[in-house]
Amino acid sequence: MKLIDLNADLGEGYESDERILAYVSSANIACGFHAGDAHTIRKTVESCLNRGVAIGAHPGLPDRPGFGRREMAITPQEARDYILYQVGAVQAFVIAAGGRLRHVKLHGALYHMASNDRQMAASIADAIHHLGPDLMIYGLAGSELHVAASVKRLEFIAEGFADRAYLSDGSLVPRNQPGAVFEDTGTIVRQALRLVEDARVRTLCLHGDTPQAAEHSELISRTLEASGVRIQSPGRI
Amino acid sequence: MKLIDLNADLGEGYESDERILAYVSSANIACGFHAGDAHTIRKTVESCLNRGVAIGAHPGLPDRPGFGRREMAITPQEARDYILYQVGAVQAFVIAAGGRLRHVKLHGALYHMASNDRQMAASIADAIHHLGPDLMIYGLAGSELHVAASVKRLEFIAEGFADRAYLSDGSLVPRNQPGAVFEDTGTIVRQALRLVEDARVRTLCLHGDTPQAAEHSELISRTLEASGVRIQSPGRI
Amino acid sequence: MKLIDLNADLGEGYESDERILAYVSSANIACGFHAGDAHTIRKTVESCLNRGVAIGAHPGLPDRPGFGRREMAITPQEARDYILYQVGAVQAFVIAAGGRLRHVKLHGALYHMASNDRQMAASIADAIHHLGPDLMIYGLAGSELHVAASVKRLEFIAEGFADRAYLSDGSLVPRNQPGAVFEDTGTIVRQALRLVEDARVRTLCLHGDTPQAAEHSELISRTLEASGVRIQSPGRI
Amino acid sequence: MKLIDLNADLGEGYESDERILAYVSSANIACGFHAGDAHTIRKTVESCLNRGVAIGAHPGLPDRPGFGRREMAITPQEARDYILYQVGAVQAFVIAAGGRLRHVKLHGALYHMASNDRQMAASIADAIHHLGPDLMIYGLAGSELHVAASVKRLEFIAEGFADRAYLSDGSLVPRNQPGAVFEDTGTIVRQALRLVEDARVRTLCLHGDTPQAAEHSELISRTLEASGVRIQSPGRI
Repeated sequence: MKLIDLNADLGEGYESDERILAYVSSANIACGFHAGDAHTIRKTVESCLNRGVAIGAHPGLPDRPGFGRREMAITPQEARDYILYQVGAVQAFVIAAGGRLRHVKLHGALYHMASNDRQMAASIADAIHHLGPDLMIYGLAGSELHVAASVKRLEFIAEGFADRAYLSDGSLVPRNQPGAVFEDTGTIVRQALRLVEDARVRTLCLHGDTPQAAEHSELISRTLEASGVRIQSPGRI
Repeated sequence: MKLIDLNADLGEGYESDERILAYVSSANIACGFHAGDAHTIRKTVESCLNRGVAIGAHPGLPDRPGFGRREMAITPQEARDYILYQVGAVQAFVIAAGGRLRHVKLHGALYHMASNDRQMAASIADAIHHLGPDLMIYGLAGSELHVAASVKRLEFIAEGFADRAYLSDGSLVPRNQPGAVFEDTGTIVRQALRLVEDARVRTLCLHGDTPQAAEHSELISRTLEASGVRIQSPGRI
Repeated sequence: MKLIDLNADLGEGYESDERILAYVSSANIACGFHAGDAHTIRKTVESCLNRGVAIGAHPGLPDRPGFGRREMAITPQEARDYILYQVGAVQAFVIAAGGRLRHVKLHGALYHMASNDRQMAASIADAIHHLGPDLMIYGLAGSELHVAASVKRLEFIAEGFADRAYLSDGSLVPRNQPGAVFEDTGTIVRQALRLVEDARVRTLCLHGDTPQAAEHSELISRTLEASGVRIQSPGRI
Repeated sequence: MKLIDLNADLGEGYESDERILAYVSSANIACGFHAGDAHTIRKTVESCLNRGVAIGAHPGLPDRPGFGRREMAITPQEARDYILYQVGAVQAFVIAAGGRLRHVKLHGALYHMASNDRQMAASIADAIHHLGPDLMIYGLAGSELHVAASVKRLEFIAEGFADRAYLSDGSLVPRNQPGAVFEDTGTIVRQALRLVEDARVRTLCLHGDTPQAAEHSELISRTLEASGVRIQSPGRI
């Protein structure tokens, strides 16, 4: 039987969070830099524990007006500082609520910078290793972050995007290009099925920042299950 | 031989930090809400470890323009969220640097609110207990936070202020009243000696936010040592 | 023919903004403290100008995690600083877009503080007068801010709330009490009609921060028009 | 007689502000993004008016932990938004205090981006023109911002740096390279005199973010005056 993890970015201020939680096996919680705050983190952690959803931290750049999507000329050490600060904060909430932080998924521009910049990736993987040697990292297969995670012996979970267009080399079409983000539900569901079939990714990202987020999540989840795929987070929760 | 701990609030953006570190046995590091940021936390943690100064977190209200000195109508649960977030973040830096977070000292209005409000104090002590049952709390002897720490079996370190005027009941003259903050070095040193003699406090707070901060710290430190007092942080570092 | 202004708080990060704009005659734009940012202000100003909606600034306390709803112990002068900063910023966008800032409506705890505290109200009215002697102020009839506006000869527009319960003395039931906020559409529409009949208010506030915000706005707007009420902002746009 | 303007960046949280104000003819006030807040702006505006120092706004990137010194991948329109927001806010304080905003000087990475990127420069000059067609712009002679200011018929004041090393092409040595920032007082004073002699710049920037800031400012000011140079801001205050 095929297994796939469905993950979503939560605690970013969208109203669909609670509905999306019903369909995912992993949550990436915004840590207060690009979005979110201490109260939202606490509530989202509690919702995840109530639903048995695996909890991850979703750190981003300190750029709230740009939602963490604009590259900033930070050094690898500054990136490390941002990981320690944000993931350390979220980890405290998870532990206080009786849970376990399971993974880290970078957000926006930080995700891209860590995919492409070797020193940045190494510095970030080092920070994550300090936060917990059993933390998983979600990211792009073959990226610099993938390499850096391997060096630190951190488990790396390859991620696919049901609603993003891919180039022939397997990289994502940049978000600011036309056609980069799928909005048609049928297209999204077909790509989800194809990605699971390909078996090159272990988790699919469901985006929560569109008006149709909850509907897409439900449809993808139900279609996968109807196709005999089991939705389950990697490792123990 | 008499022992006293000298503590100072650091990482708040004042230029005197490095000089003050030479004279204190404990540091309270601003956590990014009322002051400070991830980079300053990292640097201050490193400086403390280099000098063998005990490291504490110094969480405050999310009020940067007011430097965390203005009361806010937050709930006990919201206060708990702010403690988990800020202390969790600082703790990550200390652990990554190979150190140990030793204590928590609240900042400004949060210090006062936790001294006077029973529910607030209980909620904050609960958060600190979750962050580490061996964390010490610095605060006012006999305050609600003192009581709450005892309930949670957290060690409480009574704090005195060399540069603040006291009322006859042992409470501090509010900062906005004339004469509340001593500026005369002689007065400050005499009060430091008296507080050590009284033996009712185990730590003295040296403020870092005045132009004379480093000079005051040096003078207090040297005068105490010349009077046969040993400056040492409580517990192991 | 009866006239009423319908106003809504916009630019606070809710997805319903564009739909609500179709039904209101005045918009209060968040200024970047409790919510909003420079980009959202620009876009919301443009949307208002496109639809012929009167533009107001909606300044709040510098408390993003509390959405500006928690009282802070600020001085009247500090309140004045926050008004000058936020309204000055929004005014620049309106002027650059070829429009005119028409009014100021305070947000959340600042709204309540200025209603009840004479010195705070006077300091805020003074700031608004400096920003433009022809700016209108939206607020509670009979409040301290009403008095302060009169002293400064600023036009004051009495505001009613269709979705908030009133006490018998005409004041609002505090938001944290049960039944303070109506969610039933019928109740909201009936109270809107009653407030227009009473003719004691010149503007009705439609809240944008509920999932049903756009639906409520549409229903209130259509019901009022069907009852022969004309929806129009006071003064020229 | 030779004339030169001395300008300094103020309201950025350094303790030397009040002393530096005694020696400069123009102040660039931080606007709350990279540093500063509403209260600091008000106090600095008042200090400038008391001393007859010409007031400018000093807008930066929304990057407080990086002090606005790290480039961010913002669009020209986003840069325009940041100028309108920050300069509009400061302008409100200056007008409320009975003064006149005289110029705009960009900060840090924004200064460099506007010097080198034509579209960015045009968008920023357009925003400044909307804020006031008689506002001056301080910046690098021959930069893209210089060109853009000319297109908008905004007066451009060429700036030199007494404490920064220049390359042979007249551009600044990047701040992160060794030797980029002079610390030796004699070197700084000599370069100040040379820049005035050259007569290619109309204003000299004195940095306020070093421990020796006030001493350097005093020495430069006194040496220039002793050499027969008159320190005066361009245009009327």
